[in-house]
Amino acid sequence: MASAEDIKNTVASYMKALESKSADRVAALFAEGATVEDPVGTEPKRGVEEIRTFFKAIEAMDQTAELLTIRVAGNSAAFHFRTVSKVGDATYVMEPIDVMTFDDDAKITSTRAYWAQEDMIVS
Amino acid sequence: MASAEDIKNTVASYMKALESKSADRVAALFAEGATVEDPVGTEPKRGVEEIRTFFKAIEAMDQTAELLTIRVAGNSAAFHFRTVSKVGDATYVMEPIDVMTFDDDAKITSTRAYWAQEDMIVS
Repeated sequence: MASAEDIKNTVASYMKALESKSADRVAALFAEGATVEDPVGTEPKRGVEEIRTFFKAIEAMDQTAELLTIRVAGNSAAFHFRTVSKVGDATYVMEPIDVMTFDDDAKITSTRAYWAQEDMIVS
Repeated sequence: MASAEDIKNTVASYMKALESKSADRVAALFAEGATVEDPVGTEPKRGVEEIRTFFKAIEAMDQTAELLTIRVAGNSAAFHFRTVSKVGDATYVMEPIDVMTFDDDAKITSTRAYWAQEDMIVS
């Protein structure tokens, strides 16, 4: 099983990847066959290719991502984080809580993102 | 499906129940057949009776519970909260992230609690 430190390192890399404007860099953190349900209740993206496509949106964003709180339990982590995304003249602030599971190499095997449209602040 | 408001009300009631020294009051928020995996990675408690027994521990605690952040998505919520528990001369501070699912009546159908022993502050 991945250690808590390995898991926290992957989540830190995920924050940096969200800022990188590179869907490839985000997708590289996921295990083959991983799923992303974002937000929870929607149809999951399945596999690294679908995940890469989903994250293509960040390539048009000046985005910062800041980890606020993380809790690791077993091979899972739950964490609260803030993204500030600029697209054209609009700025979107989101503070989701994500739950991820990890394989033995601390690659992400699943993401479930808890947030609702009304949690987004647009300015 | 329960509304986001109903789900938030149940979580608020859960905070109050954790302060109540009554395992019955906590158990009453759960649906028949509910599960509690606390922390994630341990064997889940199954059904209201096992859940009531699990929460018997709060009956010996002067405990406060404060909701810090909640995100609702579909029939699920993820939330970060703080408990301060006094048992004898010791004070334990915990700030888990819990994920719950809810039935149509906003009764809790599952709890998964993300925290590790090293997150507990004892004084």
